[in-house]
Amino acid sequence: MDQGTRLQAITRRIALAKGEIRAEVLLQNARLVNVLSGEIHAADIALADGLVVGFGDYDAETIVDCAGRYVCPGLIDGHIHIESTMLGPWEFARIAAARGTSAVIWDPHEIANVLGRDGIEDMLELTLTCPLSFYVMASSCVPATGMETSGARIGPRDISWLMAHHSGRVLGLAELMNYPGVLAKDPLVLAKIAACGCALVDGHSPLVSGKALNAYIAAGPNTDHECIDLEEAREKLSKGMHIFLREGSIEKNLKDLLPAVTDFNAQNFSLVCDDRDPADLLSHGHLDHNVRMAIALGMPPVRAIQMASINPARHFGLHRRGAVAPGYRADVVILDDLENFRVWKAYLAGKDVAETDFTAPGAMPARNTMCLAMLGGKVREENLAIPQVKDEVRCIGIVPGQLVTRQLHVRPLLEDGQALADPARDMAKLAVIERHGKNGNIGLAFVQGLGLARGAIACTVAHDSHNLIVAGMNDKDMAVAANSLVECGGGMAVAENGRVLARLALPVAGLMSLLPAEGVVRALDEVHVAFKSIARNPEVDTHPFMSLSFLALPVIPSLKLTDRGLVDVEHFKHVGLWV
Amino acid sequence: MDQGTRLQAITRRIALAKGEIRAEVLLQNARLVNVLSGEIHAADIALADGLVVGFGDYDAETIVDCAGRYVCPGLIDGHIHIESTMLGPWEFARIAAARGTSAVIWDPHEIANVLGRDGIEDMLELTLTCPLSFYVMASSCVPATGMETSGARIGPRDISWLMAHHSGRVLGLAELMNYPGVLAKDPLVLAKIAACGCALVDGHSPLVSGKALNAYIAAGPNTDHECIDLEEAREKLSKGMHIFLREGSIEKNLKDLLPAVTDFNAQNFSLVCDDRDPADLLSHGHLDHNVRMAIALGMPPVRAIQMASINPARHFGLHRRGAVAPGYRADVVILDDLENFRVWKAYLAGKDVAETDFTAPGAMPARNTMCLAMLGGKVREENLAIPQVKDEVRCIGIVPGQLVTRQLHVRPLLEDGQALADPARDMAKLAVIERHGKNGNIGLAFVQGLGLARGAIACTVAHDSHNLIVAGMNDKDMAVAANSLVECGGGMAVAENGRVLARLALPVAGLMSLLPAEGVVRALDEVHVAFKSIARNPEVDTHPFMSLSFLALPVIPSLKLTDRGLVDVEHFKHVGLWV
Repeated sequence: MDQGTRLQAITRRIALAKGEIRAEVLLQNARLVNVLSGEIHAADIALADGLVVGFGDYDAETIVDCAGRYVCPGLIDGHIHIESTMLGPWEFARIAAARGTSAVIWDPHEIANVLGRDGIEDMLELTLTCPLSFYVMASSCVPATGMETSGARIGPRDISWLMAHHSGRVLGLAELMNYPGVLAKDPLVLAKIAACGCALVDGHSPLVSGKALNAYIAAGPNTDHECIDLEEAREKLSKGMHIFLREGSIEKNLKDLLPAVTDFNAQNFSLVCDDRDPADLLSHGHLDHNVRMAIALGMPPVRAIQMASINPARHFGLHRRGAVAPGYRADVVILDDLENFRVWKAYLAGKDVAETDFTAPGAMPARNTMCLAMLGGKVREENLAIPQVKDEVRCIGIVPGQLVTRQLHVRPLLEDGQALADPARDMAKLAVIERHGKNGNIGLAFVQGLGLARGAIACTVAHDSHNLIVAGMNDKDMAVAANSLVECGGGMAVAENGRVLARLALPVAGLMSLLPAEGVVRALDEVHVAFKSIARNPEVDTHPFMSLSFLALPVIPSLKLTDRGLVDVEHFKHVGLWV
Repeated sequence: MDQGTRLQAITRRIALAKGEIRAEVLLQNARLVNVLSGEIHAADIALADGLVVGFGDYDAETIVDCAGRYVCPGLIDGHIHIESTMLGPWEFARIAAARGTSAVIWDPHEIANVLGRDGIEDMLELTLTCPLSFYVMASSCVPATGMETSGARIGPRDISWLMAHHSGRVLGLAELMNYPGVLAKDPLVLAKIAACGCALVDGHSPLVSGKALNAYIAAGPNTDHECIDLEEAREKLSKGMHIFLREGSIEKNLKDLLPAVTDFNAQNFSLVCDDRDPADLLSHGHLDHNVRMAIALGMPPVRAIQMASINPARHFGLHRRGAVAPGYRADVVILDDLENFRVWKAYLAGKDVAETDFTAPGAMPARNTMCLAMLGGKVREENLAIPQVKDEVRCIGIVPGQLVTRQLHVRPLLEDGQALADPARDMAKLAVIERHGKNGNIGLAFVQGLGLARGAIACTVAHDSHNLIVAGMNDKDMAVAANSLVECGGGMAVAENGRVLARLALPVAGLMSLLPAEGVVRALDEVHVAFKSIARNPEVDTHPFMSLSFLALPVIPSLKLTDRGLVDVEHFKHVGLWV
């Protein structure tokens, strides 16, 4: 904004606040949850030009009688991977805005692994005009490791570029998961911190403490969302980290960490989601769920709302956001019920969310990322064959309900010189197929405990490089499931007897859908029903796709499979399939 | 800092924190007042390269046994006019650093009125290497009004210039006293807000409330240090202002406002001094006095210290300052006694203050600002004559102990067609002599209640334009007092019977001394003793120079005198001497 425009804007704000120009909306008879004064007080709140005009008896085009309802600022999620919702950002915004969200700080780590800086910039451009604000932290660890093939790399120059070209929207460096790299003074890792100047750096340092934590913090990161117990949170807080109290669909820490919040330090905590799966988003909500939960756990509502509005706004330096006060962006939520945070009406920049069109202004970018050209465009059964070499294989052992795996040594089912899946022992064949058009790598192994009785399942959400991962009891169904995803641009599929039983297409980078949220949840349900039809124990609820999507992530112990083969995570090295 | 240097710095910080390089100082057996966690906990704190390395059993060149003493971050004064101490900034730093201060946010409003942008830049340059950090808010109201002649004007382009050329040190726009101008949408005033972009704007809006306050805040200002009662503070807080709890030598608000601070809003308050006279500074201290007082008034020590360290640091966006934590600037204070905030030892950027040289690196700039060229270089008795025109004059009536004055209509002592001072009625002649070399204006009037029996007093600290103000019972002594200040570059003087009884020279802009603090206080004492020797009631303690220095400020009611003549402040217009 140039100085003349700014001067005009200030002049108009004064005229509006003095009541010389009619406001657009007056929220009458509100009880304002004032996150600045920490009090709840009666207020009539005028909105105009996307901003809060002030409190008082203003004249307005539209008068909304709040009838004593509570009003609070729009919620701000300080750390989320939008990709976990499988929704396009505008569709996410449609759902979250109605739940009271006004802004998110997005680490587009998954998009970045597939499409790099271009993917991030596509998303920035796509969401530029969205009334729910998408701020971005530049993804710091792409690829996550050198033991896999990702779709892209993000280096220090990309970080500088993003910060410089999207100033005010790219706020800093996203969660710096490679804490061993920081502690080892890896120049490439540190150059990324240096590249973002004195800006914000999100941390990710589970269980790091003592001098190592001093070093990690001194290097740059000043938030943490990975604390699992009170002591860890207290140490990180005392050393200068803003603590994100995470409550996601997978990792849930809010209840354990809430006692770390006191009257003297509450300003240093924010509520965040990190991830939120589509069904959770629709049924439980977005950050409203976390606020509700914090209140249910005994936190005073004013403080719970502070931790989801003004606290993240201040931490990230968001100018005049996160509160309802004169000159602040008019992100205002009217609640039917404070304790349960039930939204009656929400405004984003002064516009009623119910009357807002959340259609993305252009086509979703970042399609067609299924590039198997090096394999001739599709997966063939022979690509999946494992000829016998020795007698015993390293097999990934799933630990129910966890992301860590065990390393098993097992004699596979052998037939005609081939190692085969063995339904009798719940031992499926597993393939990770490079899908970014880089090298056509296929990693092959076995996984025990996925719960398949027959058929195959495939997925392109496969952290962090998001290659095509397939598990099955026979090569044919594996190829069918995999190729069905190649055909639709990625997603999740279940196959049996040579045909696809169910499929959720995720054509945006193989990660996000073009469907409305309700359609995504319906398709996911169908995929899960299909899985049950080929499962060993259909009556037991499991999360086979969740398990599958983490089997390729070589930073969580013990044994994982990438497109380059098995990884012994404890020793952080590739190991052979045959013992 | 370029990226290579930054990378090197990060690498070294990590090595230090890991203990691979020996630290410089280890503060052993400390009890850390942790303003981040809000707790007090045991810690050994290592310092090196000007930063806090971390907590732990580090090896260090110097081990300091704190023997269980409390340790806290250096204090940060969010709003002060250093000129009120009459000390050069390095000398101020010497005194304040030993009292635990690590940084000040300085509105150089007085210097700016005399020397404009050049004066501000001189001070910025002078203090660049000072271990106590001088941040500046660009003075917004220079001159304060159009009814007086100041030494300089500061316009929107000066604001932009200062922000751009001293980025990171000039943080925003200083207290915007001209709130009527803001509310009237005065384009010049608003252009100054626009010129500082989205940066910080300090407010100054005593008693402004309701829609007017909405307008003022929406226009930009987001702090207040002028609240006089709880309701005012609460309204300003609730509308988004960070509240500076002021306790200065003149204006004292801490006790009245402290009840506004709660567990839910304490992060939005800071302790500030605004002004601090030299004697107060030496006897009671700087911000340590305010912390002590807040604790004595019942505030928990951790919170009082938060309000004087991390709160102002965050409000002003001071990167990694205001707390003792890894990577933070090593501004550390060791206390002999927490409740009384008695400093045992202080470190600025890791260096022991007791071993720090506070000699300014160059000569103090901004001397020789007594320019009476238009008057031929000095004040003559005939310049001070008031020939009779009518029978009754408007006379300024001093209200004991206050800055407001009354407007009296009085028949002056008349002799030979001249109106004269009248010791019998405590009615002195008053002159405001333009001293910036602009026009040689002399405003003449009478003041009742200053307490002079004979002689004259003169001063160049005369808010806000800092012209030469003289009051006396005869023209000769008035000229002598005035000319003695012309000769020494400004200051304060007392004259009787044609000779100077005492003088404090303030050669830096007529506002600040070149002496050490102790010398300034001694000279001030001498000036006061001299005043008593010519006073009507030597046994009564009054503040004649304080009164004098505000008699030329035409923004405090009711009747004031500038170089352009009498000002009826209520009607904000010049009025004639003769009724």
